[in-house]
Amino acid sequence: MSLVSLRNDTFLRALLRQPTDYTPVWLMRQAGRYLPEYRATRARAGSFLALAKNPELACEVTLQPLDRYRLDAAILFSDILTVPDAMGLGLHFADGEGPRFARPLRDEASILALGAPDPNRELRYVMDAVSTIRQALAGRVPLIGFSGSPWTLAVYMIEGGGTDDFRAVKTMLYRRPDLMMHLLNVLTQAVADYLNAQIEAGAQAVMVFDTWGGVLTPAQYRKFSLAPMQQVIGRLHRERDEPAPGAGGLVRTRVPSIVFTKGGGQWLESIAGCGADAVGLDWTTDLADARARIGSRCALQGNLDPLALMGDEAQIRAEVAHVMESFGPPQPATGHVFNLGHGISQHTRPEAVSTLVDAVHEYGRKMRAGRL
Amino acid sequence: MSLVSLRNDTFLRALLRQPTDYTPVWLMRQAGRYLPEYRATRARAGSFLALAKNPELACEVTLQPLDRYRLDAAILFSDILTVPDAMGLGLHFADGEGPRFARPLRDEASILALGAPDPNRELRYVMDAVSTIRQALAGRVPLIGFSGSPWTLAVYMIEGGGTDDFRAVKTMLYRRPDLMMHLLNVLTQAVADYLNAQIEAGAQAVMVFDTWGGVLTPAQYRKFSLAPMQQVIGRLHRERDEPAPGAGGLVRTRVPSIVFTKGGGQWLESIAGCGADAVGLDWTTDLADARARIGSRCALQGNLDPLALMGDEAQIRAEVAHVMESFGPPQPATGHVFNLGHGISQHTRPEAVSTLVDAVHEYGRKMRAGRL
Repeated sequence: MSLVSLRNDTFLRALLRQPTDYTPVWLMRQAGRYLPEYRATRARAGSFLALAKNPELACEVTLQPLDRYRLDAAILFSDILTVPDAMGLGLHFADGEGPRFARPLRDEASILALGAPDPNRELRYVMDAVSTIRQALAGRVPLIGFSGSPWTLAVYMIEGGGTDDFRAVKTMLYRRPDLMMHLLNVLTQAVADYLNAQIEAGAQAVMVFDTWGGVLTPAQYRKFSLAPMQQVIGRLHRERDEPAPGAGGLVRTRVPSIVFTKGGGQWLESIAGCGADAVGLDWTTDLADARARIGSRCALQGNLDPLALMGDEAQIRAEVAHVMESFGPPQPATGHVFNLGHGISQHTRPEAVSTLVDAVHEYGRKMRAGRL
Repeated sequence: MSLVSLRNDTFLRALLRQPTDYTPVWLMRQAGRYLPEYRATRARAGSFLALAKNPELACEVTLQPLDRYRLDAAILFSDILTVPDAMGLGLHFADGEGPRFARPLRDEASILALGAPDPNRELRYVMDAVSTIRQALAGRVPLIGFSGSPWTLAVYMIEGGGTDDFRAVKTMLYRRPDLMMHLLNVLTQAVADYLNAQIEAGAQAVMVFDTWGGVLTPAQYRKFSLAPMQQVIGRLHRERDEPAPGAGGLVRTRVPSIVFTKGGGQWLESIAGCGADAVGLDWTTDLADARARIGSRCALQGNLDPLALMGDEAQIRAEVAHVMESFGPPQPATGHVFNLGHGISQHTRPEAVSTLVDAVHEYGRKMRAGRL
């Protein structure tokens, strides 16, 4: 295993619980509406979806935050709902609202008719974006690929979009658990294929976003959200060939995986056993408690409240320090990737992110030097 | 201490961790839109708020679910936002939307101008409803009084209503923690006075609804949500005089308290130490785990997913059994009050509640008889 074709492999090393010089940081939704340059590119594209489906423009916005901030990873600019869109549900975004499907799953027949898409055909634009971004990054930092979790995709596919009460999807869960499991099995296959295609196209780490696992009971979570994710992780290609530095040739390289269930703090022990290299946490879990509970089984990613960025510079630095201290100084076989506990708010001042990124790096170096 | 003026004191006994013949049950929002008779009374009242502010009609809807189902407690029909309304914020409900305040807290001056209302004057209609309901109940079951928690009231007062991202209230939390604490101190006084007035008027148990504590970090939760609730609980009148059965006179009677933080499962140990007799849990926490974590420090209330009521009769019975089994057979100094993990959905079939209530009672009796 080698990470040497990268100029900055700190993020990958932290995920693999190898020593790092400082704590790496990236932000969920780091390429997004809080950046004026993003809003300009999106305006040129015409819509969010047109932007996500255009590999050149998706590459452009993926790199924008890296040009502003010393982030340690890039994440593919895309949407968590590309897979159901490729399955024929007709994804669109109403202005100022969340995602909607033109053809949500309303009956048994429409569920039984679903099949896993071929990611290299129906989701070709995503793979093209991945390879375009890798080329543009030229080894600056690693590129993260991602997908929604099977359960989270199922929620949107059945509800037809965002929901307050999860009534449609939970009615199916309670009334037709067999049909729900059929749907989840199809989605498990689809998500695994999709992530593997991203890895083949160049993704150097992958993340599964389980936005809605936290609305389930513990038993439902294990069965309908965690078990499908565990199967996805089990089917992933764990290594890919990367160009060797210098004279050429290829070298096998590990592709770490991250699983993030928003609101899943109570189930951390189970999540840490799903086979992923790292577990993402939202801000409701203390990282010190998390470490005490799972030891060095996984790296941890998180977990600043995105709205902490509404504070002034000193307040942001204090909140960063609080998260860094709660994880504590690095110890053998532990890894911490700093992140928010959810996507960055569109109302964030861009300068707040500079403060955050610099504070994480400075604090991480001081902590390692024992100068705190 | 005596509970003998009640014909059914099972609910109060369970809260006080005394032996009971079966597991008592009531449902959050049991007087509500899923009942056609409620919709009829509300139509007569003209609006939700007119209904809540009319003691006779509030009494009528409070009793409606008791006439249909063998529930073990009544809960005052009211809203969690009556206190800020009495503080001058102007509560109203737009059709099909949640609560809104006409005058949300937007600046420091408006916060510093706030004072705790006199519940027997500005909230007289609530006290009148409590005494009217007590009279109408005539000892059938105990009456629960309630309030929103200081933090939850602050969220609505600053946001001006419901919110997706809690940006206004969290911006104040991060930027002006001093001002937030000032507001919470005023609300702590107001909520304690309000609940004590309800107890004086006849409430036989009280519940604090902390709907939004779960959006905080662990440290913020302890400081801004739990500590104010702990102060409220500490200021409550723990006993009230009840008419003695038979020849007359008065007897001192315990008034148990319940604290419920939605999404607070991770912090159960801290919540159990706040001085309340019982802790409410949503469906994301397993009751067996909860018991293992807090032992017999508190009774537990909960925790069926309200949408489990979307299932058919056999499915509802199975879900009830699952919750009952997870709490397990009663042991000395434990208490379980069956409830939902959140308010009942307006889309619930009324027959589903019959199934639920009967299943809880039957299962609880069988469990006590060792016939499972």
